[in-house]
Amino acid sequence: MQNFVFHNPTKVIFGQGSIPKIGNEIAKYGIKRVLLLAGKGSIKTNGVYEQVVESLRESHIDWVEHWGVRPNPVLSHAIEGIKIVREENLQGILAVGGGSVIDEAKSIAAGFYLDNLWDAFERKVEIEKALPVFTVLTISATCSEMDPYAVLTNEKENKKWNIGGFPLYPKVSIIDPSVQSTLPWEQTVYGAIDALSHIMEFYFQSKGEEPTTSINETLILTIFNSVDQLQTNPLDYKARSALSWSAVLALNGISGAGLYGGDWACHTIEHGISALHPEVAHGAGLAVVFPAWIKYIHTLNEMQFLRWAKVIFGKNNVDSAILALKEKYKSWGSPVSLRDLGIFKEEIPLIAENVYQAYSIRTIGVLKNLDLNDIIEILKIAY
Amino acid sequence: MQNFVFHNPTKVIFGQGSIPKIGNEIAKYGIKRVLLLAGKGSIKTNGVYEQVVESLRESHIDWVEHWGVRPNPVLSHAIEGIKIVREENLQGILAVGGGSVIDEAKSIAAGFYLDNLWDAFERKVEIEKALPVFTVLTISATCSEMDPYAVLTNEKENKKWNIGGFPLYPKVSIIDPSVQSTLPWEQTVYGAIDALSHIMEFYFQSKGEEPTTSINETLILTIFNSVDQLQTNPLDYKARSALSWSAVLALNGISGAGLYGGDWACHTIEHGISALHPEVAHGAGLAVVFPAWIKYIHTLNEMQFLRWAKVIFGKNNVDSAILALKEKYKSWGSPVSLRDLGIFKEEIPLIAENVYQAYSIRTIGVLKNLDLNDIIEILKIAY
Repeated sequence: MQNFVFHNPTKVIFGQGSIPKIGNEIAKYGIKRVLLLAGKGSIKTNGVYEQVVESLRESHIDWVEHWGVRPNPVLSHAIEGIKIVREENLQGILAVGGGSVIDEAKSIAAGFYLDNLWDAFERKVEIEKALPVFTVLTISATCSEMDPYAVLTNEKENKKWNIGGFPLYPKVSIIDPSVQSTLPWEQTVYGAIDALSHIMEFYFQSKGEEPTTSINETLILTIFNSVDQLQTNPLDYKARSALSWSAVLALNGISGAGLYGGDWACHTIEHGISALHPEVAHGAGLAVVFPAWIKYIHTLNEMQFLRWAKVIFGKNNVDSAILALKEKYKSWGSPVSLRDLGIFKEEIPLIAENVYQAYSIRTIGVLKNLDLNDIIEILKIAY
Repeated sequence: MQNFVFHNPTKVIFGQGSIPKIGNEIAKYGIKRVLLLAGKGSIKTNGVYEQVVESLRESHIDWVEHWGVRPNPVLSHAIEGIKIVREENLQGILAVGGGSVIDEAKSIAAGFYLDNLWDAFERKVEIEKALPVFTVLTISATCSEMDPYAVLTNEKENKKWNIGGFPLYPKVSIIDPSVQSTLPWEQTVYGAIDALSHIMEFYFQSKGEEPTTSINETLILTIFNSVDQLQTNPLDYKARSALSWSAVLALNGISGAGLYGGDWACHTIEHGISALHPEVAHGAGLAVVFPAWIKYIHTLNEMQFLRWAKVIFGKNNVDSAILALKEKYKSWGSPVSLRDLGIFKEEIPLIAENVYQAYSIRTIGVLKNLDLNDIIEILKIAY
């Protein structure tokens, strides 16, 4: 194994009926007033909102609500949140929603202590502190509930960038998988594909380091099986909870322990797509980019890609496994090409340029440091 | 999955060359003076001691040494440690050694705040606080480096009991697997069997909950392969590090997530054996007890035991898998029967009585709550 540090202080309370615990958990931090951050309102129809505010009331915690976090959360909305926190003297952020809501919560929590939040995304300042973040998760996908990262889109500059830092780990995350049974099907699917992509970003860097490599295979297969089962019965709690916990393990440090830090080229390219096409769900973009990236890159770590083909799909070559991956995604109703996403071939250079320029402060990819031409080639395959 | 809480705040720094980081990690807690707790002196021959004290010096941390922790650590030695901490105004405990040293460090850390340390083991008081514990691990086995538990033997009362509590998680644990390459072979083996037993305590409770059940299989197979490889070449770092990290995952919360809390009958019975026979290594005792327990209990969760037989050993029945498990342990040079341990058949009632009486404050076993007769029967099979 490669050297690594594992240090994840988030308390995860997992299971059916866990949501009413949130108030007491916040109160343990001596907090009396929080920002309740949420999306467009689905938590009012699935009963989550009622459970949360009832729990806050019981623990004598006041809250101010900030609605309207977008699926790809934007800088301007986070800045509004910071303003509310300052004006209302709030002491912490309670994110009730999916990865987008949690990511914006972290951004607000860090931004509270900064003159200019976006400076952190530009790596001009370090994140040395943040307000405490608590989460009640409503869709399993990003692992933002148990990681120190946040992604935000600067809509004026078409940049979908990220921050990371130890103060951004949520203090407490409540994961009640049963509330996800009413999700629209495509959200379950895109969440699962996001989690699968996190695992694969690490997995394909592996040179066979155990136990992490095999654990990642287990997680991939568990997610495949869980989504297949949920497609038959969205109320299957065993499958729903297996998917939820696998999505956590996909990016909470376990899936990367002793590997090589992840490649992240596919995530970077996808962020370039959805920065220009905000209507593209992150998971849908990843379903399109990942198979193309594998096709383009696999000879650089061929043994690992062959292992993947064999263990996950029972195939003896990578091309057949790529087809099987696309078939799997298609069987769930996901797009698997840029064409499926409604993106024109003529846009490829623009997207590639956006990826390349936006990420000029960092290299793109580890198995290969991708240049502009590489990105164009991958997008052409993805078309 | 069953409901669960995952909250493990220990920072693990893993890899070759990590030991010199310990001083700086302790200094981050504002600590100037620590108790350096150690065993019989192996850390002076394998270079670990020198690395540790050099790092403490560089970080301007003073230390007082307390040597002589036994393989089954005893109450009296821990009480001596508490006395030293109080007299010398020490602010934390640095355990340099294996699980025994870390367990005693936790006991000292908790005992510092108690009138009578053993009261905590008797469940007469809760562990509400503890001095900060830091560890430099020299043998992978117990996961004490990343769990909130400690086992201590009250030698006057022949009780080998445990404590647990959130304040007992080590703050920072350094795991440099390369220092384990000079371990006596049987210590590597008994450490591995201890870790395997932790996994199996959870695994056999499973009703197929994923991803945890499959992750546990991965950990079992990784440990099997790693020990086999180390038997050929003790310097094999890939195998050594795989074993070390698997032993952490065996009891840091990952192996039990969403299962049923573990059975722990085998650990309890083994503690009864080694309380009366302190010369019996914990891992050796477990190698003897576990196959017998499986034989006695398997029909109560037959599907899971059959899955184990199939996935781990490729067998279609549990009896064949039990034989294969014993063969595996024997191939590593471990005893697999009470006879191998040099324990006479006539002692069985006494051992069983010791287990049963000593644990009168708690039930023994979950798959079946074992009574005195059950324990005798299991020990007879183990003979």
